[in-house]
Amino acid sequence: MKEISLGLIGFGTIGTGVVKLLQDNDELIKERLGAKLVLRRIADLDIETPRNVPIDMAILTTDAGAILANPGIDIVIELMGGYEPARSFILEAMRNKKHVVTANKALLAVYGNEIFKAAEKERVNIGFEASVGGAIPIIKTLKESLVANRIKSVLGIMNGTANFILTKMTDEGKAFDVVLREAQSLGFAEANPAYDIEGVDTAHKLAITLSLAYGKKVDLDDIYREGISQISQQDIDFAKELGYRIKLLAIARENKGVVEARIHPAMIPLDHLLASVNANFNAFHIMGDASGPIFLYGQGAGMMPTASAVVSDIVDISRELLQGISCLKPARSHREEGGGNISLLPMDEIHTNYYLRFSAVDRPGVLSKISGILGEKNISIAAVIQKGRRQSGAVPVVITTYKAREKDVQDALCEIDKLEAVLDKTVIIRIEDDKL
Amino acid sequence: MKEISLGLIGFGTIGTGVVKLLQDNDELIKERLGAKLVLRRIADLDIETPRNVPIDMAILTTDAGAILANPGIDIVIELMGGYEPARSFILEAMRNKKHVVTANKALLAVYGNEIFKAAEKERVNIGFEASVGGAIPIIKTLKESLVANRIKSVLGIMNGTANFILTKMTDEGKAFDVVLREAQSLGFAEANPAYDIEGVDTAHKLAITLSLAYGKKVDLDDIYREGISQISQQDIDFAKELGYRIKLLAIARENKGVVEARIHPAMIPLDHLLASVNANFNAFHIMGDASGPIFLYGQGAGMMPTASAVVSDIVDISRELLQGISCLKPARSHREEGGGNISLLPMDEIHTNYYLRFSAVDRPGVLSKISGILGEKNISIAAVIQKGRRQSGAVPVVITTYKAREKDVQDALCEIDKLEAVLDKTVIIRIEDDKL
Repeated sequence: MKEISLGLIGFGTIGTGVVKLLQDNDELIKERLGAKLVLRRIADLDIETPRNVPIDMAILTTDAGAILANPGIDIVIELMGGYEPARSFILEAMRNKKHVVTANKALLAVYGNEIFKAAEKERVNIGFEASVGGAIPIIKTLKESLVANRIKSVLGIMNGTANFILTKMTDEGKAFDVVLREAQSLGFAEANPAYDIEGVDTAHKLAITLSLAYGKKVDLDDIYREGISQISQQDIDFAKELGYRIKLLAIARENKGVVEARIHPAMIPLDHLLASVNANFNAFHIMGDASGPIFLYGQGAGMMPTASAVVSDIVDISRELLQGISCLKPARSHREEGGGNISLLPMDEIHTNYYLRFSAVDRPGVLSKISGILGEKNISIAAVIQKGRRQSGAVPVVITTYKAREKDVQDALCEIDKLEAVLDKTVIIRIEDDKL
Repeated sequence: MKEISLGLIGFGTIGTGVVKLLQDNDELIKERLGAKLVLRRIADLDIETPRNVPIDMAILTTDAGAILANPGIDIVIELMGGYEPARSFILEAMRNKKHVVTANKALLAVYGNEIFKAAEKERVNIGFEASVGGAIPIIKTLKESLVANRIKSVLGIMNGTANFILTKMTDEGKAFDVVLREAQSLGFAEANPAYDIEGVDTAHKLAITLSLAYGKKVDLDDIYREGISQISQQDIDFAKELGYRIKLLAIARENKGVVEARIHPAMIPLDHLLASVNANFNAFHIMGDASGPIFLYGQGAGMMPTASAVVSDIVDISRELLQGISCLKPARSHREEGGGNISLLPMDEIHTNYYLRFSAVDRPGVLSKISGILGEKNISIAAVIQKGRRQSGAVPVVITTYKAREKDVQDALCEIDKLEAVLDKTVIIRIEDDKL
């Protein structure tokens, strides 16, 4: 039986998962592939800490070069993460005509163009299903299953930790800080949780998603990004009252050639599938012009789900190697990269519905002033919740709007927040509820 | 630019959708494929009725042979449906070294072995993404994305018409017959709706799903099948009261090498994603041993969603042709077909939870008799709803059970239905609620 030789760089959680999966389902994979996947070398700086898989110690090395320069290795699996040396290793592997599988979303989001170009030049494959959505086949669905579709929109819950936190805050009424510590103790969140809760990780994934949907690169800095650390229990409660759930949403949407891309907490109607995505699950709601809505859901991270995606890439590439070919599919979705970036609609120009929570002094005329300013900026009010409570401080006044332009809303809030009767910065949460 | 030549047999709704999609997204597909798809001939017995797409009349023919024997055609798209002459046409196309794309689930469910074997022998590809789940990438997900997984279970809502009917009955309280006529007038349901509502169509799709998940054929007759025509408003109401929604569910589940396969109405907990699949949508809940749960949702039928899947197969095959190869992936999921059928667990031996609605005379001791018989058969009661109403006829007594063996339940009902105090055949609806 033919063999395909693998080299793994990065023997952490996901790397261990890949080793375990290759071992556990060895027979099954052999039957399905018609060849044997053989893991020849594993490189990691730490080869001392015991991992929970039986392994021939002789294949361990601290020298990545033992894989990158090894003429016997067909596919390099990069699971170390981070920009460097992952980037250099991948480029070196490609120069040595090795195919690459990676789960490194940060790297692809920033250095994707360089890496995809190198893959094309060297005629090697680059598999990255595991970089977005863990076990969820989002990359394959966008690149292959929806190949005949214009992608009208992708809405995603792409970070399990942020979703875990919002779920706990919503269902158990716990405070942000408390749930964050819980997530950390469960090993979900990084000790420095900014990547998860400030939407950085989501931005990496959205950038990759955008490049697949529209065949071009997007600059990370061009993606509007807002995290969840400002979400309060009060807003969660108002969302419930209005029939919504708050999720950290990544949004890509195309309209007449113009693409918008943004990441922020959003209120989603309870009866939408995305509102049912709880705990640490991820999901993607894709609208293709022919397919109609497609919804994909699953474990967006974790040892075995991510390993499932990594090994699916390994098998795909191996099938090509067994037939003596490579680069069956373009690295992104287009054969010919239309140079340049996707031009994104400036955030100021997006139109959506808004939830606005004002901290207003509880006295006559305040609502009239606020709504007056909104009216001047062409912002139509959909609903108002004002619960007058006699007290000295502020009371919350919640206003939801019909579709309005972001710039107009920001301008209005600028004026409103200067009002003497408004005591605190107005909270703004966008509502995504038109057909999504 | 290279060209791939297509021949279409069957110019009905789906065929028209494929032609439209190839036209509408011509540029996009060219960019992504790096080659042009050219539709050379269209064969249909009816070439007179105008379709809603502009077409060169010269490519129309009533002679399928003009495609099957045409040396200029690379890929034959079979969209006529039915067993014959679709089967003969596909086999002839393969003998002529043409690759085939089909949406014909009935054909593949029954003649799959013959067709897949012919494809292997002739070294041609067979694409059938459109045969199950319309635009939903269920075939690709099972064959490729989850290639490293043992498939523990697939639960699916695979027939849009049946789901449409159940949704209307549930949400609008309409009677089965009324909604069925509504579905027919919307063009959803066939004039002979048995395929949809008796689960025949679902059985075809489950058979294909099973063969992908477990790499072997299954006999259609071995799949237990129950339709939705017996579902009453009363059961829908009790389901709501118990926190469930009734769906026509296709179930494939593997446990220690033993596979169960069944199709029947099932009660699903409201908070499960499958309970949110309404109207004519389809969905699949797959459990892989590494991936964990994967949920896929979308339009399971219809002109453009199905065309989306057909064209994705055409592009996949074209990519291989452009590289001078074929049969990159096995037709099913395994390289080596382990001859023989999947051996299915007999329906009598399945274990699940049950909803039982007895039509009992409203007098003392009846519940005790019923529960006594259940107890004798080792069936534990989870809940009872008895709404005593003084009247002469029967009152419904609803009992839900913990996990019990089908044979024991059937035996118990046999005895219970003979009781003088039980006036009508007991209604039995299985409950699927353990982790699905």
